Amino acid sequence: MRQIETVALEDARRVIAAGEQKAREIGSPSNVAVVDAGGNLVAHIRMDDAWMGSIDISINKAFTARAFDTSTADLAKNAQPGDQFYGISDSNHGRVMIFAGGVPLRGSNGNVVGGVGVSGGTGDQDQAVAEAAGAAF
Amino acid sequence: MRQIETVALEDARRVIAAGEQKAREIGSPSNVAVVDAGGNLVAHIRMDDAWMGSIDISINKAFTARAFDTSTADLAKNAQPGDQFYGISDSNHGRVMIFAGGVPLRGSNGNVVGGVGVSGGTGDQDQAVAEAAGAAF
Amino acid sequence: MRQIETVALEDARRVIAAGEQKAREIGSPSNVAVVDAGGNLVAHIRMDDAWMGSIDISINKAFTARAFDTSTADLAKNAQPGDQFYGISDSNHGRVMIFAGGVPLRGSNGNVVGGVGVSGGTGDQDQAVAEAAGAAF
Amino acid sequence: MRQIETVALEDARRVIAAGEQKAREIGSPSNVAVVDAGGNLVAHIRMDDAWMGSIDISINKAFTARAFDTSTADLAKNAQPGDQFYGISDSNHGRVMIFAGGVPLRGSNGNVVGGVGVSGGTGDQDQAVAEAAGAAF
Repeated sequence: MRQIETVALEDARRVIAAGEQKAREIGSPSNVAVVDAGGNLVAHIRMDDAWMGSIDISINKAFTARAFDTSTADLAKNAQPGDQFYGISDSNHGRVMIFAGGVPLRGSNGNVVGGVGVSGGTGDQDQAVAEAAGAAF
Repeated sequence: MRQIETVALEDARRVIAAGEQKAREIGSPSNVAVVDAGGNLVAHIRMDDAWMGSIDISINKAFTARAFDTSTADLAKNAQPGDQFYGISDSNHGRVMIFAGGVPLRGSNGNVVGGVGVSGGTGDQDQAVAEAAGAAF
Repeated sequence: MRQIETVALEDARRVIAAGEQKAREIGSPSNVAVVDAGGNLVAHIRMDDAWMGSIDISINKAFTARAFDTSTADLAKNAQPGDQFYGISDSNHGRVMIFAGGVPLRGSNGNVVGGVGVSGGTGDQDQAVAEAAGAAF
Repeated sequence: MRQIETVALEDARRVIAAGEQKAREIGSPSNVAVVDAGGNLVAHIRMDDAWMGSIDISINKAFTARAFDTSTADLAKNAQPGDQFYGISDSNHGRVMIFAGGVPLRGSNGNVVGGVGVSGGTGDQDQAVAEAAGAAF
């Protein structure tokens, strides 16, 4: 049997609060989602006026960051036409997002134990919000 | 053009907090989700130890309550074999939930402007949590 | 090669207008959809305040009426547990609706050449609107 | 609770009529669809001889324009290989269209309150029809 760490609801709320604050600071109304070690949703918020189409994207960015233990920005670099992971976004029933805004959450030993996904702005904005969110974990 | 009311994030948080408190009181770790007038997710939480399979169900119960302006418990009464809406759960790509735990949220004029969905316990428990949540709207 | 009749846009509009008028008369804000001989959508309307979850249902009722050349109310009688078509609603990727509100549209020789689907009220209301709509074809 | 504007059926009909007229002028039989503030279909028409495969595309272009508060032509510019939103069309269960023909509908304060989507011709034709349609809102 294995012991693993994962994300508690109170962790997710802290992560989301930090993301929300950053989103307000940079004026980018966002969806922020957190998944646990199993890649399953722990919590999600859509700030007022954030894009509706970004609900799904935020949840999927968080999933992707945990599913492959990587930021979606890094995955993007390997998922372009001709790259080693080109086509990965066709897997997992459309849940793999290959653009910036998803960041893994790391546990006490550095292992990935969850993910946070942000969607609502440009790639740079989403990434900034996701990093601020993840830093609060 | 029409003016309508919908659910703000702060409303969704108040609704979720009330549901969470009720869930603790009755010892039923729950997923609680809130959708807006368009049936789109505003916020979701999964309490620690709540069923993972209930993430989707809570979101879909909230959707269903708004999609048909009814509680899912009432819809259930009309969706059994031989009933007038039997088969409705095959529509909307699997998003229609026909058991208790989804409650519509009503605006200032009594119109439905959103929905809350709860999943994690028995039908009675989910319904109790959803009603407590909805009452905070 | 075969000659077939099908539904023109102007036919669909006439059918929808008749359904809309009936829906107003009986106070049942409805979705009304018309499909052609290929079962493909020609036109759809959602009246103000009609159920959002009924968009999909109206289109699927119209599809079903054409797909099996029958009213969905008649199909319902054969699609209950134990009946000869029980389970038919699992086919066609969730597009088969087995409750009242879908009516076939018949061409000059009595053949089915399209369908109209109505959703937004009780089974009886949807059926009444669909019949009024279909009669205008 | 928030007050928002959305698209009424009569608005959708006016938008569709303007699109239909433009489509006739340029000889491009089209599907024209309108969604409301929640991204949900209000009305759709398929002109005689318009592509059958464009039913879905027109509805999804309208959805996309509202889901991300942008024209699909503008989104397309950011969704090519190497761009910041490359892969966005894998989200939202295949509903995100990243080519021309979807235009947001703006309310009295400039906010996006719906969308119109057109499909049936070339990108330029679809865009011309969508713009003519949207201008009638």
